Amino acid sequence: MSSKSPVCFTQKVDVLELLRDGRARTRAELVAESGLSRSTVGARVDALLGHGLVVVAGEASSSGGRPPARVVFNPTARLVVAVDVGATHVTVALTDLSGLVVDVVTLDLAVAAGPDVVLGAILREARRMVAAAGRRPAEVVGVGVGVPGPVEHATGRPVSPPIMPGWDGFDVPAAVQRVFDVPVLVDNDVNLLALAEQHAAWPDVTELVFVKVSTGIGAGILAGGQLQRGASGSAGDLGHLRVPWVPDSPRPADDPRDLEAVASGPAIAERLRGLGLEARTSADVVALVRGGDQRVHAAVRQAGRDLGAVLSGVVNLLNPSVIVVGGSISRASEHLIAGVREVVYGQSIPLATHDLRIVRSRTDHTAGVLGAALLVTRQVFAEDPLPHLIRSG
Amino acid sequence: MSSKSPVCFTQKVDVLELLRDGRARTRAELVAESGLSRSTVGARVDALLGHGLVVVAGEASSSGGRPPARVVFNPTARLVVAVDVGATHVTVALTDLSGLVVDVVTLDLAVAAGPDVVLGAILREARRMVAAAGRRPAEVVGVGVGVPGPVEHATGRPVSPPIMPGWDGFDVPAAVQRVFDVPVLVDNDVNLLALAEQHAAWPDVTELVFVKVSTGIGAGILAGGQLQRGASGSAGDLGHLRVPWVPDSPRPADDPRDLEAVASGPAIAERLRGLGLEARTSADVVALVRGGDQRVHAAVRQAGRDLGAVLSGVVNLLNPSVIVVGGSISRASEHLIAGVREVVYGQSIPLATHDLRIVRSRTDHTAGVLGAALLVTRQVFAEDPLPHLIRSG
Repeated sequence: MSSKSPVCFTQKVDVLELLRDGRARTRAELVAESGLSRSTVGARVDALLGHGLVVVAGEASSSGGRPPARVVFNPTARLVVAVDVGATHVTVALTDLSGLVVDVVTLDLAVAAGPDVVLGAILREARRMVAAAGRRPAEVVGVGVGVPGPVEHATGRPVSPPIMPGWDGFDVPAAVQRVFDVPVLVDNDVNLLALAEQHAAWPDVTELVFVKVSTGIGAGILAGGQLQRGASGSAGDLGHLRVPWVPDSPRPADDPRDLEAVASGPAIAERLRGLGLEARTSADVVALVRGGDQRVHAAVRQAGRDLGAVLSGVVNLLNPSVIVVGGSISRASEHLIAGVREVVYGQSIPLATHDLRIVRSRTDHTAGVLGAALLVTRQVFAEDPLPHLIRSG
Repeated sequence: MSSKSPVCFTQKVDVLELLRDGRARTRAELVAESGLSRSTVGARVDALLGHGLVVVAGEASSSGGRPPARVVFNPTARLVVAVDVGATHVTVALTDLSGLVVDVVTLDLAVAAGPDVVLGAILREARRMVAAAGRRPAEVVGVGVGVPGPVEHATGRPVSPPIMPGWDGFDVPAAVQRVFDVPVLVDNDVNLLALAEQHAAWPDVTELVFVKVSTGIGAGILAGGQLQRGASGSAGDLGHLRVPWVPDSPRPADDPRDLEAVASGPAIAERLRGLGLEARTSADVVALVRGGDQRVHAAVRQAGRDLGAVLSGVVNLLNPSVIVVGGSISRASEHLIAGVREVVYGQSIPLATHDLRIVRSRTDHTAGVLGAALLVTRQVFAEDPLPHLIRSG
């Protein structure tokens, strides 16, 4: 696209949106950067100061007289409840408005216990944490929840989630809002990992695919800078893609398999059992990887090749600039990503791989709650934030 | 997502953006709908009236006295040059601001003649058309160009396009701007078909994949309502995806092929030659389809199945709500889409196919220039439109 630089008319930038980057600014700088009038900026800054959302930061240099005050965003002024519901564990965190964790706890609790039990436990923990931090429930501006299944994003209801009995169509926001009457955002857990990875490691990348290899295999797709959820929330279901056959494959060509059936933790474990090793779960595979057995490394590498065969198609189709491979097996072994790289760089079209980076995840086990917190703060700040933020004012 | 409805603060809607839907409104209605002040709306409407971009439409009902004037968008006030560069033909159109064609011509001109020859001919035609319409060159607000290859969207330069010798990295906007000094937007031709199809047939759909089956096979992906071009402009390269083997396939399992090698016009022609029929090109295949030979229908249906095997993966990955199949072979025969439906509905995950519609294209051979015009108007109206629109004022 080539055009003259236009005068911004329709999209003025809010003062708080500007200050979120953490840089201190004078009111004059805010007027210049926002395009808003001096009086609007003044009223806005006064309101934000009154609510503690910005604080006076220090003094800017000036040509003389009393230097003008600079204000800076105060992310600790409000709280977010960020939740990562896994198959067998639930992590509940309290974060500030930048996603920084104030308190966090992981519960041994299966998602299969159902929404009443799981959400009940989550809400008890969240209330306890708010009190323990010496804060008030009204300081919570939003709740973000990641779940291990597809979610209808507009309503926050899980949609036919295979490993979440009792959750299909359950109105998660309504249940949470009985305790915290704030925006409640629910999303697939891998989407939240993609969001967290981008935020922590690739802030300038708009085309990113995050792949989680664990008990299942799923992807979170960022395209055009936006999480892509598809029409019914099932986008990124990499595990059900057919693995294309390649000439040196260990499987017969006329026995095509879905990716999850050959490259997930349980699938690798099955292959290892065939070699006489004791393995059932992803955790067993990780333990064997740490033992250093060459046969284990070879099995993990072949899983990486199979993943690469599927990702070659994803690269041709979506042309991402970064593919991040995460999940427990990727964390334990470099052989998974080595297999992915071998096949993707060998099979995808040159234009799509020219600047493609295939990397391991740089985030840790707290990425799920970071993603949940980001989901909330992006939503709250994308709308007019004040009505959400000043409830406790 | 669940939240209280927030007061819109950061994103006011411009008057012209509102009026683009073609509905007439009073100034009071514009104040209410835009969130802008009465004086801002008044000044804006006066400016738009002065430039002919809106006109007085008639009279609204009122509680008495002189009824307030209603204004309506006047799409004929300005022009767009919309160009569709194909492998062997170039279509140049002059449209109004709604994409309606004022004049159009198709030239026998191969893209392989190179950018100087092709763009030279395009610019001559465009200037001739503007004059023939009794308009001035300054009334042209933008130029949209579709080309048969990947394009770096930010710069409008083709990137390693396989069938466009001489165009790699060529600065198309700069060449066009020597004649029309306006925004010039360049995109892959299939992306523009996707845009045109959505505009004409699926205006409320945000997740749409348009597939063109012709000499090559490519896709335009709309996700989250936005065209997805990927990191280097090569997103949608469906033709280089591997066709997953299925048990009733006519090909051996250990001879995997790319989609373009089995389902494009030339690939279908090759299969028909194997049956003793005379066919080389997509046009030959279309002619044979019209002849009604059952062997031809069967070959086209198998191409549809192969396309479906690839699209099954696309459905799992992107979860679109609409897949549109276009291109000359789809237009000529229902058997292509029948094959696609057979495989996609059989192989994709139920959640992703539950509400999926797989349909034939409803647009015709002018879709390329319509898409090029839409690319321009969306860009021009997304920014502050007045500086672009009032050049001729």
